Amino acid sequence: MALTMHSASVPVFARMLGHMDLWLEKAAAHAEARKFDPKAFLTARLAPDMLPFPNQIQIASDNAKGCVARLAGVEIPKYEDTETTLEELRERLRKTIDFVRSVPEAKFEGAEGRAIELPRRTGEPLRFTGEQYLVHFALPNFYFHATTAYALLRHNGVELGKLDYLGRDR
Amino acid sequence: MALTMHSASVPVFARMLGHMDLWLEKAAAHAEARKFDPKAFLTARLAPDMLPFPNQIQIASDNAKGCVARLAGVEIPKYEDTETTLEELRERLRKTIDFVRSVPEAKFEGAEGRAIELPRRTGEPLRFTGEQYLVHFALPNFYFHATTAYALLRHNGVELGKLDYLGRDR
Repeated sequence: MALTMHSASVPVFARMLGHMDLWLEKAAAHAEARKFDPKAFLTARLAPDMLPFPNQIQIASDNAKGCVARLAGVEIPKYEDTETTLEELRERLRKTIDFVRSVPEAKFEGAEGRAIELPRRTGEPLRFTGEQYLVHFALPNFYFHATTAYALLRHNGVELGKLDYLGRDR
Repeated sequence: MALTMHSASVPVFARMLGHMDLWLEKAAAHAEARKFDPKAFLTARLAPDMLPFPNQIQIASDNAKGCVARLAGVEIPKYEDTETTLEELRERLRKTIDFVRSVPEAKFEGAEGRAIELPRRTGEPLRFTGEQYLVHFALPNFYFHATTAYALLRHNGVELGKLDYLGRDR
C-alpha cells in the first residue's frame, strides 16, 4: 500500500473520531457513576480564553469534514454547532465519520496539487496546495482539538489512558 | 510534489518542533515579565496521573526522531532525558530538528512497506507497516504531546494563540 492523500486523511480522521466517540461514552459513564450532571463537562476550558469542550469536538469534526471535502473537491457538509449534550456530540462525531467514509477514494486523484483556499475573517484567504494543507494545517489542527478534548476530560477526572487516544487495537 | 513518506514526516516534525521552541521562548519571557521562576512550568501537569511538562517535550522529541529513524532505517539517536530548564528543553527541540533534517530523503524509499516493531514493556511488540506506523501512531502521538505541552503553557497563563501552534506564516 502506498501512502496517498486518501490513506493519509480519510482512515486517519475516521479512526480518531471513533476514539473520541468512546471518550465521550466514558465521560458519560463517569458522570453517572459519580452522580453529577454530564453537562458539567460542556463548560470545561483549559484556560479562560480557550474554547470550551463542545467547540473542541465541533472544530475537530469541522477539520475532518472540511479537509476531506476540499481534497476531494466535493461540497463541505454544513453542521449547525447546536449540540448541547454529550450524546449529541457523539452523534456529531459519528455523522462526521459517515461523511468522510462516504467520499469515493477516486476523487482524491491529484489532490496533492489541488489549490486550497481557506477564507479568513479578515485579509487574504490562506492558500495551500492540497498536500501542504493536509500535512501542515488540517492534520495538526485536527489533532490539536482532539487532544484538547482528551485533555479536558482527563483534567476533569475521566479515566482515559493513552490507548484510548491511540486505539485499543495497538 | 507528491505526498511521500518523507514529505509527510520530516518537514512536518521539523516545522512543529520549531513552533514548540518558540512556545518555550514565550514561556521564559512570561516568567521573566511576571518575575517567577521559569522552573515552575516544569512540574505542571493537566491531571495528577498525566506526565509533567518536560516529559511532554521529551516524548514529542522521541516520537519525531524515532519515527524518522525507523522509517529511514537508521539508528535512533539516544537522548538522555536529563533536561531541567526551559533552555535545555529548547536545545532538545533544536537537536531533534537537526537530526530529522539530517536524514537523507533517499533513505525513505520504500518506507511505506517497511516492517516497524515497537517494543513494549510487557507482551508482544507493536507491529506496523511504515505507513500505518506514520499515520496512525507516530503522527497522532507526536501531536498529542505537542498539544499537551501547548495546553500546559496556556493553562499556566502563557500568551499563546492558534498561530503559535499552526505557524505564523499561515
